Amino acid sequence: MFLSFEGIDGCGKSTQARLLAEALRAEGRDVVLTREPGGSEGAEEIRRLLVEGAGERWSAETECLLFTAARRDHLERVIRPALAGGKIVITDRFADSTRIYQGATRGDLRMMVDRLHELTIAVEPDRTFVIDIDPATALARGNARGGKEDRFESLGLQFQQRLAAGFRALAQEYPGRVRLVDGSGSVGDVAARVRAAL
Amino acid sequence: MFLSFEGIDGCGKSTQARLLAEALRAEGRDVVLTREPGGSEGAEEIRRLLVEGAGERWSAETECLLFTAARRDHLERVIRPALAGGKIVITDRFADSTRIYQGATRGDLRMMVDRLHELTIAVEPDRTFVIDIDPATALARGNARGGKEDRFESLGLQFQQRLAAGFRALAQEYPGRVRLVDGSGSVGDVAARVRAAL
Repeated sequence: MFLSFEGIDGCGKSTQARLLAEALRAEGRDVVLTREPGGSEGAEEIRRLLVEGAGERWSAETECLLFTAARRDHLERVIRPALAGGKIVITDRFADSTRIYQGATRGDLRMMVDRLHELTIAVEPDRTFVIDIDPATALARGNARGGKEDRFESLGLQFQQRLAAGFRALAQEYPGRVRLVDGSGSVGDVAARVRAAL
Repeated sequence: MFLSFEGIDGCGKSTQARLLAEALRAEGRDVVLTREPGGSEGAEEIRRLLVEGAGERWSAETECLLFTAARRDHLERVIRPALAGGKIVITDRFADSTRIYQGATRGDLRMMVDRLHELTIAVEPDRTFVIDIDPATALARGNARGGKEDRFESLGLQFQQRLAAGFRALAQEYPGRVRLVDGSGSVGDVAARVRAAL
């Protein structure tokens, strides 16, 4: 079983991915918890190119290619071997993030993202949880984290609002796979909603 | 005018690219001499991921994506602005290298390389010089250089022979653009042949 968590920066998806992994492990399941961009040794090196530095460091097209390269490495070295070994894979972001982030950066990129995906990835999770939260709340949380990985947060609230709308639209586009999870309330409240959606 | 030099590792193309740039500058032309992978600040960072480390560090598919990402950055930040400014651009390697190296690594990759190129690059040089040389001679030269950038040389003579055959086939595939240049003899001999082919 291949599960992904998606949503805007600071929405709480990393926490929820970890909590679901812990809950499934407590039930005796073999779980691999991973993340994108990154998740494999090579992909983590590509991640550093993507998340550090100035907001305009890469064009949106170059960014699509780098995200896809990192995803391909992650898929080959971590996700596929784990699934082949009968494990549950939970990833904090997957292809939907590229669809929404690059699509929100420039609308005409969505076609490029989709064609790159078909050509080099061609795998979707069995279930995707989109943690839906107010963009202003999420941005404040993301900024409070500090650190060097703030390139997307630095693009501002309006950008995060476009992303949030894009993630909501995913649930309509992929009704069989994507579940919109209300991200308000306590961490435990949200975890209960994730579990219900699983 | 956009010119590229291609060929196997150690064939002498970097020297020939430099000599042609110097000759054209001596005639008063404005020339930008660049290289791949790399050639722009971002692409040089991607280059480090590609040319250093173990031979099996990346799968051929991930490698295609990384080379294409570096090329897109190089095209946007260096090649297109220089051509728009009326300059001559000479690049040491371009898309043909990806076609031949990844095609030689695994034959079925050529289609992926071509589709990635159409989708994200879609530009060819006006003229391409393939420096054609005996693979054993070239490999000895490449190995003698030393340094950290030896990932492709480490794949051995048989691999270099497949590459050399692939580069020769390019001249048939793109007869209007690609010129095969005999790389034997002195550096000056080869430079004269390049100039004649231009």
